Amino acid sequence: MTTLTREQFAELDRQDPLAGFRDRFDLPQGHIYLNGNSLGVLPKAAKERAREVVENEWGQGLIRSWNSADWINIPRRVGDKIAGLVGAAPGEVVVADSTSVNLFKLAAAAVKLRPGRGKLLSEPGNFPTDLYILQGLEAFLDGKVCLETAPRDEILAAIDEDTALVVLTHVHYKSGAMFDMAAITARAHEVGALVLWDLSHSTGAVPVALNQAGADFAIGCGYKYLNGGPGAPGFLFVAQRHQAQLQQPLSGWFGHANAFAMRDDYEPAPGIERTLCGTTPVVGASLLEVGVDIMASADMALIREKSLQMGELFIALVEQRLGGYGFGIASSKDPAVRGSQVSLTHEQGFAIMQALIARNIIGDFRAPEILRFGFTPLYVRYVDLWDCVEALVEIMANGEWDRSEFRKLTAVT
Amino acid sequence: MTTLTREQFAELDRQDPLAGFRDRFDLPQGHIYLNGNSLGVLPKAAKERAREVVENEWGQGLIRSWNSADWINIPRRVGDKIAGLVGAAPGEVVVADSTSVNLFKLAAAAVKLRPGRGKLLSEPGNFPTDLYILQGLEAFLDGKVCLETAPRDEILAAIDEDTALVVLTHVHYKSGAMFDMAAITARAHEVGALVLWDLSHSTGAVPVALNQAGADFAIGCGYKYLNGGPGAPGFLFVAQRHQAQLQQPLSGWFGHANAFAMRDDYEPAPGIERTLCGTTPVVGASLLEVGVDIMASADMALIREKSLQMGELFIALVEQRLGGYGFGIASSKDPAVRGSQVSLTHEQGFAIMQALIARNIIGDFRAPEILRFGFTPLYVRYVDLWDCVEALVEIMANGEWDRSEFRKLTAVT
Repeated sequence: MTTLTREQFAELDRQDPLAGFRDRFDLPQGHIYLNGNSLGVLPKAAKERAREVVENEWGQGLIRSWNSADWINIPRRVGDKIAGLVGAAPGEVVVADSTSVNLFKLAAAAVKLRPGRGKLLSEPGNFPTDLYILQGLEAFLDGKVCLETAPRDEILAAIDEDTALVVLTHVHYKSGAMFDMAAITARAHEVGALVLWDLSHSTGAVPVALNQAGADFAIGCGYKYLNGGPGAPGFLFVAQRHQAQLQQPLSGWFGHANAFAMRDDYEPAPGIERTLCGTTPVVGASLLEVGVDIMASADMALIREKSLQMGELFIALVEQRLGGYGFGIASSKDPAVRGSQVSLTHEQGFAIMQALIARNIIGDFRAPEILRFGFTPLYVRYVDLWDCVEALVEIMANGEWDRSEFRKLTAVT
Repeated sequence: MTTLTREQFAELDRQDPLAGFRDRFDLPQGHIYLNGNSLGVLPKAAKERAREVVENEWGQGLIRSWNSADWINIPRRVGDKIAGLVGAAPGEVVVADSTSVNLFKLAAAAVKLRPGRGKLLSEPGNFPTDLYILQGLEAFLDGKVCLETAPRDEILAAIDEDTALVVLTHVHYKSGAMFDMAAITARAHEVGALVLWDLSHSTGAVPVALNQAGADFAIGCGYKYLNGGPGAPGFLFVAQRHQAQLQQPLSGWFGHANAFAMRDDYEPAPGIERTLCGTTPVVGASLLEVGVDIMASADMALIREKSLQMGELFIALVEQRLGGYGFGIASSKDPAVRGSQVSLTHEQGFAIMQALIARNIIGDFRAPEILRFGFTPLYVRYVDLWDCVEALVEIMANGEWDRSEFRKLTAVT
């Protein structure tokens, strides 16, 4: 590749068919935000929606808004919109609870669907909460099922006839590596196992075709690429064919066939609503809907195309301009197996990221040495990538990272 | 009692030491709201807080707000404030998830603390989600524990050495009847059983003294008397003495001892934080904090005094003015065992409540024949009770309830 210039990046922005979306978000002035894979940004329309749901629907409508503002149908209504983003059908997705809680519900239900099988399978280094929830399930069932992990290139071989459920994150939170959903699902089905896909780093970032892949279950996050707001509710998917048999243990009243009959005995709702538990978090789910609506109005093929081009260019810039500073590239250079992020490695990664953040260029750090840069094509520009790498060059050339104030912490994905 | 007059009620309002609180809430014009036991009203300060958390903390602070806006400590910070309302110590309460999810966590953990015991005990007609969650736990553990129910006057006798956990709602959602928390807890402890109190209709409504009663576990609702907003997160309490042994199955990353180390193995946080699961619902929890702050600034003894006086007067009005119309009084006339509501019965209760709501006087209906009227002393006036009963008199005298438009619907507690 010839030497890249900032003007080339500016030209790509001028030609970008998604460029108009940027104006639908309220980005802080003077910032470059490459952390939408951790917490997405604020849609301008979410400000108005927050006022509406708080001041009018809650404040004026009060209890009547369960009907008049249709709060009661939020889980399914927003779920149906998300279904369109992940290749699912209406009635297969609901919005509810957190990603972690949703994983527990579906993993527990999957174990019930595969009695006698003792293995839950995942990969080491999966997103921690996924492993923790499976460990919680294992402990709770007194070892009736055991979590085993296999490295990603050995996953296919590790799926066997004792496997009840395979739980994998489609796009890896740290490296951005992407599994072949169809191939793994097919292998699992060959031996009668089920698969649950964590789509937290996929939804709104890469094309997802759950039904085409024959997927059984999925969960996902509302506050990353969907721009639903901090701690937005998660979502979950259950393939239509599993719904009638699905028995999940968090059988709260919102999952009842007729919650307001107030009967003593639980009777699961006939469809996907049986995965609901407690009262819908109305404000959070209403803000999530705004982000989902924007994502649903964008062309996923264009998003993926821009995302991949950004990944290519970012890697090329790192190679051209940051050689000799000790960076490694933790993400695959093969775009077919890379999500919408590029991760670098550096032994001083933590301090370097802090120095970058001090310049209002926001990526994030994952221990022990990963610098993550997320590409969210609806609001990140090509020139942002140039300017980010330029800042890294200066930080390294000046030794700017090596200051005490850049050596403390915490962060959140 | 001599014949009551509206002027007497107006005089009580003039003398009310809590009267100043009403101005801190944004009540819809021309409404009488007697449903704060179902969904509390909007604090004026919540409007500003919503803008702040959405537009500044999320929009401008983005991922940095986990630290700079202290999002990371919300569960514990708001939990400590709620602890003060329920007679718990700091470090014994967190805000998280929904009431239903929190019940599952703690009931499952309690079963683990009492191995070999096979009985979960509750009462028939408890709030449905409490029974449903216990049924879900029972099914999930393949009958290793079984839910039994006993009528409230037989509960003490039903607690035995096979009982792992008693789950009761302190103030009954329908009748307002209140259990003697200390007596039941003491009886359970005599035989080695644990008790979990659902405080959904107690917190902010009646004095609660968890530690004085020797309580083990409790859960509660954020959107009723705490005025936290629709679907606000719930809270949970674990007595300090149980925390180190507590093993709850929803072991998500926010409950980890060191979440951001991103290790593969779950290690529970040392204290109450081990009951957390997924990412905190920041917006909902931030709005809840506003309501909790107001409640924490009020004197619970005054709240209880006004609430009881409202109950007495409401019952007296119903008896004096609604005799002959077929109403019954489902709540106890003994204030010592009554929460902050009075429930009436009427075979046409549903249509009568609809007629009342059409006049912007909002109580609620619970099948098959209960009309609930909740008293929230921070914003309900004595004259509201007079005007409500006056409206009921007109509705009954005119046959106003007997119209077709009052015969459809649903409602939510």
